[in-house]
Parts: sequence; structure tokens; C-alpha cells
Amino acid sequence: MPRVDSQRREPPGLSSASKVPIPTLERLTTYLRCLIDLGASGVETVSSAEIEHHTGINAAQFRKDLSYFGEFGKPGVGYNVAELEGRIARILQIHRVQPILLVGAGNLGSALLGYPGLKEHKFHIVAAFDNDPHKIGKKTWDIDVFDLRRIGEVNEVLGARIAILAVPAGAAQAVTEQLVEAGVRAILNFAPIILRVPRHVAVRNVSFLQELAVLSYHLTSDPLAADK
Amino acid sequence: MPRVDSQRREPPGLSSASKVPIPTLERLTTYLRCLIDLGASGVETVSSAEIEHHTGINAAQFRKDLSYFGEFGKPGVGYNVAELEGRIARILQIHRVQPILLVGAGNLGSALLGYPGLKEHKFHIVAAFDNDPHKIGKKTWDIDVFDLRRIGEVNEVLGARIAILAVPAGAAQAVTEQLVEAGVRAILNFAPIILRVPRHVAVRNVSFLQELAVLSYHLTSDPLAADK
Repeated sequence: MPRVDSQRREPPGLSSASKVPIPTLERLTTYLRCLIDLGASGVETVSSAEIEHHTGINAAQFRKDLSYFGEFGKPGVGYNVAELEGRIARILQIHRVQPILLVGAGNLGSALLGYPGLKEHKFHIVAAFDNDPHKIGKKTWDIDVFDLRRIGEVNEVLGARIAILAVPAGAAQAVTEQLVEAGVRAILNFAPIILRVPRHVAVRNVSFLQELAVLSYHLTSDPLAADK
Repeated sequence: MPRVDSQRREPPGLSSASKVPIPTLERLTTYLRCLIDLGASGVETVSSAEIEHHTGINAAQFRKDLSYFGEFGKPGVGYNVAELEGRIARILQIHRVQPILLVGAGNLGSALLGYPGLKEHKFHIVAAFDNDPHKIGKKTWDIDVFDLRRIGEVNEVLGARIAILAVPAGAAQAVTEQLVEAGVRAILNFAPIILRVPRHVAVRNVSFLQELAVLSYHLTSDPLAADK
């Protein structure tokens, strides 16, 4: 039985490979976003209290999150904004361009291709794949769409290790196997199924339905619900 | 300082209102998906071991998750598929149509409108809002796009309590305040900022960047990384 990322927190291969809690990694991106904004506004140093003010994340939590990665900041002075930004980017391996394969060039895949935040954070979708003959050989948002069957061959050239999976549920497992075969070791999965992957491959699942169902449950459990 | 959903697990107002752990609610949607598929294949009863086989979620975890909501199944017989499906749907309030507002009819918003899984699970996007004069007054995927400023007025008629926020970061907080004012109590947020909301409003954040950054970190921390 493969291990399963049923809680979004422990993708297969990820928790075992890393001593850093996943929520810490998730919060690092929030700190990074905040530091980029502060840097752009000309701020040079920042305290953990100011980080709390900007991100809503508790100052003690912020210091604890950083402590996994060594020494940061100076007592009484705070953190150098540019330096901390650079160190967090290196921790997350987004200080240099990270090539990504997109599988599924439908509505969602195309929307992701056009998502402006990705390139800002050095995530570059370098190729898209689909099985629709009307899409293959064309470009979407300036990215070539290849035949799904060519994942291995194309990635021999591109060497991407991350893939975004935006295909229907029925196709997801077979495509995953192709991706793993092609050297991909991290998959962002939008298909509403639980992927079976080898231990060295990490999966993060994004399920819109799951998110909406949790919110929907909230509507009944909320103590104010009866008033409205 | 508002409470913050920095870990995706405890949106403001949600953990306090509910004794059921969020991961349990997340897993319920996986069970539901599995039960729908089993029902469609003509399966009438299912054991917790079979649920584990199909979903990858441990049988004991499955039984514990259900235990939050009362008695289910019969010892030695298992669970009636149709009955369990109906009960989980009612728990998640998706046994009847749940109307949803979509704010932001850009690439991502349009992709969500076309996402086939939503309607299958009774989540109906009933209106879209945008500030682009080229979109206002037209239809996207057969849904009317209204002027952003009309959220309150339109929702007086529609009465939606859930909204999907797919606007740029800079607009997200102001739109959120409009939504709360219009009676929305649960927000699925795609904007890369932490929303400030009153305690009775639940937020779930979906951040593609955060997911990719966690995966990117995995590439370095993986013990096999050096071999490839």
C-alpha cells in the first residue's frame, strides 16, 4: 500500500526526507512575499513584530520557523530585508529558475500558464503536454504544447523535476507514471484522485472540491449560522 | 490582530466553531468521491478495509473520521454505499445545491467556472463579478458577469454564503469586505495575501506558489536528489 497524502501535509517522500515541518515551508513563502514587498517599498530592516504585523503570523512562530535553517537577524537590530529574502529564496530553491512541466493544457492548465505570480518566483513552465490533436504543436501563452506521449523525450532535453498535473482524474495515474519515468520528482496534482508514486516522489494535492466542502461544512457548524 | 489561516488548517472562525478536525473534513470528500464511484459500479456494501484499498486512507482512520458524526455501518456487514454517501453529503451540506459567488472572471476564474467537478458536487457558481467593462454584462460559461460594485445588491437576490476569490492580490482585501458585507461567510481565496475577516467568516487559501515552493524544497532535501 503506498503512503498517501490524504492530509495535504505529508506528501509521500516529503515528510520522510525532510525534518522541517511542511507548515513551516508553507509559511516561508508568506515571509518571502512580505519581504519582497517590503524591499520594494525601500524598507531595509524588519523586526519579527513587524513581520507579524504584515503577515498575521505570530512573531514567535516566525522566529521558530527560521530557526530550522540556522541563525538569522541580529538581536536589537532585526533582520536585513534583502539578505533574509535571499536566504529564504535559496532555502526554497527559487533563487534560480525552476523549470516545470505542465500536463493538461485545458482551461485550468491554460489559466496556470497565464498566472503572473509563477514567473515572478522563478517558476517557469517550460513545456505543456496534452492529448488533444487540436492543441498539440501549437502554443498556449507562448509555451509549446507537445503530444502527451512525448513527455520522456522532451524532458530529456529540458530536465524538469517538477510537474503540474491538470488532467482529468481518469488520466492522472497513467500520466504520473510517465512523469516519474521521465525523472520528475515533485508533482502538483489538481486531479481529484490520490496518486500512487514511488517514495522518492513528492505530491501536493490541490482539490477545489475539498476546499469548498470544508467551507460548506463551516456554514452549518458556525454558531452564528442560525441567526442569518 | 485577526487570527490567521497561515497553516491552511484553521481558517478564522472555523476551528473555533467546529470540534471536527479539518483533516477529517478534507478526508470526507475523498470518501464521498470513492462512494460515488463504487455506487456507480453497482457496489452496495463496502468495508473499511475496502475503503482503505480504494482511497489509500487507513481503515482505522476512516472509522475514526466517521465517529465524529455518529454511528455508521454494521459490524461484520460493512457500510451501505448509498446510505453512507448520502450521510456524508448531508454532513458537508452538499446534498442540496450550494450557490457560490465568483469574484474575478479572469483566466483562473473562468477555468473554475468551467471545472466540471463543481456541479457534480452541487456547488453551483451562480454569479460572477469583475471590474473589467469588457466582461461586465456578458456571460462566461453561461454565467452572468456583474459589475464588482454590485455584489451586495446581486447577493440580496441570490443569498450565496460561499464565495470564490480569484482577483489580484491588491484588490482582494477590499473585495473581501464587500463579500462579508453582502452576507458571505466562507471564502475560497486564490489571491496570494492573508485576508482579514471577522471571526464568523471562514477562509481557505489556495496558493499555487506555496505548493510549488514546498515541492521545490523537496528536490534538495530528498536523499536521492544527489543521484539524479
